[in-house]
Amino acid sequence: MRAYNFCAGPAAIPEAVLERAQQEMLDWHQSGMSIMEMSHRSAEYVSVAEKAEADLRQLLAIPANYKVLFLQGGATLQFSAIAFNLLGEGQTADYIDTGIWSQKAIDDAKRFNALNGSHVNIAASSQADQYLSVPAQSTWQLTDNAAYVHYTPNETIGGLAFDFIPQTDAPLIADFSSCILSEPLDVSRFGLIYAGAQKNIGPAGLTLVIVREDLMGRAHPVTPPLLNYGVEAKNGSMLNTPPTFGWYLSGLVFEWLLEQGGLAAMHAKNHAKAKYLYDFIDGSDFYHNPIAHPNRSMMNVPFTLADAGLEKTFLAQSQAAGLLNLAGHRSVGGMRASIYNAMPLEGVQALTQFMAEFAKQNG
Amino acid sequence: MRAYNFCAGPAAIPEAVLERAQQEMLDWHQSGMSIMEMSHRSAEYVSVAEKAEADLRQLLAIPANYKVLFLQGGATLQFSAIAFNLLGEGQTADYIDTGIWSQKAIDDAKRFNALNGSHVNIAASSQADQYLSVPAQSTWQLTDNAAYVHYTPNETIGGLAFDFIPQTDAPLIADFSSCILSEPLDVSRFGLIYAGAQKNIGPAGLTLVIVREDLMGRAHPVTPPLLNYGVEAKNGSMLNTPPTFGWYLSGLVFEWLLEQGGLAAMHAKNHAKAKYLYDFIDGSDFYHNPIAHPNRSMMNVPFTLADAGLEKTFLAQSQAAGLLNLAGHRSVGGMRASIYNAMPLEGVQALTQFMAEFAKQNG
Repeated sequence: MRAYNFCAGPAAIPEAVLERAQQEMLDWHQSGMSIMEMSHRSAEYVSVAEKAEADLRQLLAIPANYKVLFLQGGATLQFSAIAFNLLGEGQTADYIDTGIWSQKAIDDAKRFNALNGSHVNIAASSQADQYLSVPAQSTWQLTDNAAYVHYTPNETIGGLAFDFIPQTDAPLIADFSSCILSEPLDVSRFGLIYAGAQKNIGPAGLTLVIVREDLMGRAHPVTPPLLNYGVEAKNGSMLNTPPTFGWYLSGLVFEWLLEQGGLAAMHAKNHAKAKYLYDFIDGSDFYHNPIAHPNRSMMNVPFTLADAGLEKTFLAQSQAAGLLNLAGHRSVGGMRASIYNAMPLEGVQALTQFMAEFAKQNG
Repeated sequence: MRAYNFCAGPAAIPEAVLERAQQEMLDWHQSGMSIMEMSHRSAEYVSVAEKAEADLRQLLAIPANYKVLFLQGGATLQFSAIAFNLLGEGQTADYIDTGIWSQKAIDDAKRFNALNGSHVNIAASSQADQYLSVPAQSTWQLTDNAAYVHYTPNETIGGLAFDFIPQTDAPLIADFSSCILSEPLDVSRFGLIYAGAQKNIGPAGLTLVIVREDLMGRAHPVTPPLLNYGVEAKNGSMLNTPPTFGWYLSGLVFEWLLEQGGLAAMHAKNHAKAKYLYDFIDGSDFYHNPIAHPNRSMMNVPFTLADAGLEKTFLAQSQAAGLLNLAGHRSVGGMRASIYNAMPLEGVQALTQFMAEFAKQNG
């Protein structure tokens, strides 16, 4: 029996998508093969890959001057790739630090600096606020002629989200791993968007990059070809064999999102889910979420119990009730409910019902 | 209905493995989740990952002083990673050129040289022989104190295979993408073995690296962490989210291989399959394979027709007969039958039966 899975990633996938993949697993569309057993250059597979890209372009209204790349290595490999591609000799890149994932991106850009005398500038940080709010843009110290400005719109671990898209002269780069496709997005505001698939797109092992064409072709000469946006774009993300099953399954998710009414409809559902959960937490003396209200994540909802000693009991009882993976990230503890696109409102209602009962018994 | 799939990669996967993945797709072992929806750090997933590694270690009798890494990016990302990890300042790496995949590995190592004044030496090439044989080691011009020696034991496109493991003072590195697990292998002869999964292991998007411990910890300081063997080993291949479904499915393939009797049994089957096909080709005036007999690949069998004008007809009729993906690589043309572990002898017999009939009708 399927449970409600609140895992932060790899995360729940729409059941209808899994059912279709299951049906097609041994023989995709009477081809005599699984989609996994098919050449990525075959007409059949190319049609699957192209439809996935077309559906994604429709969902996000991606402008024609942006390339969509289906890559490997997760957001973490992009932390490096961004610098190899876009941080030129002696240039400075601005980074906004709003939590653990911002910091990982910063670390990997700094590692690259030695290669060409480039620099990383932390233009703003909410460290002093214990990462409970996003620093207002009026306080940022951006660099003139920066190579780019990087930020993390949604911090998966902290549950901290931007409530604005930054205004920058330099190309804006954002790690949308944990919030892509959760609501409509004005892609034209960005130079580059990237996202690991395993939260709101599909299975782990696929990484989406949406990059403005003028930002390609600038990579450092020693950049590994698989990290080079221009090379991957020229090869249609098939410089070598792409993660074909993940690309296919993500395409099924894109179809499902279109059937749900697209991203405006998903936004309404996601907003309702998050409001339901935050309202419950705020109305309780037993549960607490510390994030500044305008910066609360719609996707990842961390919360603590009045008595931290009850955490193990909470996790054991919630799991027994079919509410899975509610432990917070190992680096911060507490609880966290990730409520991506595949989580229905009913799952959130089942969670709050359990939480209410648990508070009553233990409060 | 399942067909016989001779694709060079992504290639056929054992039907029993696909059936099991299909059964488990929506609810893995009563967990309430698909394996794809499970945290890579959960006890359940870690048990799957560890069993896959243990089974692989058993299959290949991997010595304890070797790490097994489950990575992303295919062999192509390894072409770069090898240089970033192992080609030190001013050092020379020796490469053996036996075809298209050797050359790709050489190109990416050369791209790295500018970073630290390192060099690539083509110690031997069979170019003068049109890549129809492997150059005898007595003719190689190896570098004293080379950082490593790299070769391609099986050229997937050319169908050219080494019939010996080179003897080298420097660490030996080999791209086993298209022949790993096809026969027993003395891993202790190598410094590093790597292989994209999509031929003889599992779905595309997973890459195996088997690396001797003393070769880790030497990476160039700007190496992206995901390409750094020491960092990935320290993190159990989970520096970030690994390709969890591919790792799981590969584990099912390893179990299947053990059930088949392990690699000695697979070698007997693979040898019989290849002999059957080469014997048929050699006994025919209509079909031809040009590779020197000792260097014929047991996995990839290229062949030409007496009249190249009949290729399209051959491909159309073989496909109609349920014999799929027999076209040669787009760079060389002709035909190619890839007969990896998942191809039963019956598939090869069906192919030769078709080929005999086709020759009779068109000879």
